[in-house]
Amino acid sequence: MFNDRINKVQDALSKSSLDALVLIPGASQVYVSGLHFHLMERPVVLILKRGGSQAIILPELELQKLADLPYEITSFPYGENPEEWSLAFRKATTYLGLDGKVIGMEPLSLRMMEYGYFREAASKAIFQDAQELISFLRLTKEEREVSAQREAVNIAQIALENTLPSIKIGMSEKEIAGELVVQLFRSGSQPELPFSPIVSAGLNSANPHAVPTDRKIKKRDLLVIDWGASVDGYISDLTRTFAIGEVDPEMIKIHKIVQEANAAGREAGGPGKPCADVDIAARNVIEKSGYGKFFTHRTGHGIGMEAHEEPYMRGDNQQVMLPGMTYTVEPGIYLPGINGVRIEDDMLVTQTGSESLSNMERQIIAIG
Amino acid sequence: MFNDRINKVQDALSKSSLDALVLIPGASQVYVSGLHFHLMERPVVLILKRGGSQAIILPELELQKLADLPYEITSFPYGENPEEWSLAFRKATTYLGLDGKVIGMEPLSLRMMEYGYFREAASKAIFQDAQELISFLRLTKEEREVSAQREAVNIAQIALENTLPSIKIGMSEKEIAGELVVQLFRSGSQPELPFSPIVSAGLNSANPHAVPTDRKIKKRDLLVIDWGASVDGYISDLTRTFAIGEVDPEMIKIHKIVQEANAAGREAGGPGKPCADVDIAARNVIEKSGYGKFFTHRTGHGIGMEAHEEPYMRGDNQQVMLPGMTYTVEPGIYLPGINGVRIEDDMLVTQTGSESLSNMERQIIAIG
Repeated sequence: MFNDRINKVQDALSKSSLDALVLIPGASQVYVSGLHFHLMERPVVLILKRGGSQAIILPELELQKLADLPYEITSFPYGENPEEWSLAFRKATTYLGLDGKVIGMEPLSLRMMEYGYFREAASKAIFQDAQELISFLRLTKEEREVSAQREAVNIAQIALENTLPSIKIGMSEKEIAGELVVQLFRSGSQPELPFSPIVSAGLNSANPHAVPTDRKIKKRDLLVIDWGASVDGYISDLTRTFAIGEVDPEMIKIHKIVQEANAAGREAGGPGKPCADVDIAARNVIEKSGYGKFFTHRTGHGIGMEAHEEPYMRGDNQQVMLPGMTYTVEPGIYLPGINGVRIEDDMLVTQTGSESLSNMERQIIAIG
Repeated sequence: MFNDRINKVQDALSKSSLDALVLIPGASQVYVSGLHFHLMERPVVLILKRGGSQAIILPELELQKLADLPYEITSFPYGENPEEWSLAFRKATTYLGLDGKVIGMEPLSLRMMEYGYFREAASKAIFQDAQELISFLRLTKEEREVSAQREAVNIAQIALENTLPSIKIGMSEKEIAGELVVQLFRSGSQPELPFSPIVSAGLNSANPHAVPTDRKIKKRDLLVIDWGASVDGYISDLTRTFAIGEVDPEMIKIHKIVQEANAAGREAGGPGKPCADVDIAARNVIEKSGYGKFFTHRTGHGIGMEAHEEPYMRGDNQQVMLPGMTYTVEPGIYLPGINGVRIEDDMLVTQTGSESLSNMERQIIAIG
């Protein structure tokens, strides 16, 4: 499988203006090479040179990870003294003849540290954005990737179902998040969650990217839970909004609007359509209801090995949906100082339309 | 508290050759500003200009996080269309007058994405490594930071104590890691662990940075568990090595050597001494035993808001230990294809010597 992927990158390179691609630890490096490294202070750089040679710069103590790889790779290991690191970069760039060449990289990943070593080792190399090349490979999911995502959705749904009975008035957002995390692992998520769950109630729920606080949930709060699981490096990302006891009728109303916007956004996906359609469909529902200015973010984003990846579901994104793309639909209404609502599902573009991987009850449920 | 820290950075800037410091989401941004953002595809850049002005470039939907800050900050928000991002960088750099100025940044953090926007907005600005300036501030921990670290150590120790009874022959490394993660959250760790626990047995344990696999533990294995918890953004990082049933006498021997090396390394810390002393003390024990070439990494690293930070405990590091520094002592012996041992504790430099924050039994225990 990783041999195939290396070949795919080599194929993409041969059709591009790039002479090489560099990847540091993160989703794309795992995707292409199958090698798992943490992004840390010691550089680990995978370099694919057009024409078929691969090299990797890495700490000596990581060399064992290269045993039994299904493809050829030349390693440039270094010891614990950072002064050796420059030398490893010089050896690797000389071996691959990279000076003066065009090197593709991921701007959202490559750091000034690695860039600095490259500049020192191959001062005439030109660095170019290779986001498109690598995104193109990761954009449509293979069967095995989709099935990991389905499993990540199932695990997340089971974990929340198992958490709901223990949520009581007086618990803090942090306590609820802690219990949910325990349930995620009990249900089979990998230790590395895609993100820490967002549990936000009352006025905190009006912040789309809230961090759980010590605030205790109380009657009349809305409670937003945005959570996900990981399976084999693939993630899920869901949101549901609950009522704590009886809530203000306006809260019931905005919840219903968001539920309709979510349904419209899910309905709008399909092969050959622009990503914009998903955003426009969801946003129209909220705008028509008069709450348009309280829906302050795009409708969704791609998901896969990362919690946010291409394609982005924005009203101005003309990128065409293809079978195998997976993305979120997550409209929301956020009333500052009062409450917020968001309902998020994970979608798959199929040959004929789109399918929701998640199916947990979306309508408002009173708990606590 | 964050007002103090902003003032400290301003003070450090005034004594440096830097005109400004830029920080993107991560430990240093939280440390300085108290602002929590995820590192994602949307740039969030905090800029401190020498002389007292602060600015932040961020998505509109994150603006609420700036409410109630104890310091002045000018925000440059942008909408969902990435075309607006350049404009936000231009406005911010113009407002602060950064073109042609020297801008400090963290090479281990700043990405080509943010760097690219800066280059476009302020093409004559010069970027310089400001690692030292920011490390200097974070290097010695305040009382409240140390107490969070103590708590993170306690939680980690309790979690492993609660996991040990459930470890049985035939369980996979992944299953043990899953149970340990559940126990970490049950014991009170924050949802965001410092790292996924390493659980590695038998030949996998000979890889210092192994990832848990489906391999089932069996008699005669050594089992390395390297794990930690998070409290208020501060972490612990511990390792213990167990015997599964009765093991080869050489394994008992190398475990004893590593235990002695760990004790020597812990003993060697203290104010005014070079960090090298810790490495040399631990390494000497292993070298004298004849296993020197199987101890393939430095003896330790600083810990705090990140799992690896300054100071690094290497034999060539003359950096002087100061009261309030916290670091790991984690010697190991790794016999390729056979087994590995590592014993890791978290240390604090005190006014008179050093103190181990962790105290869990270090000698070999048979389990399973």
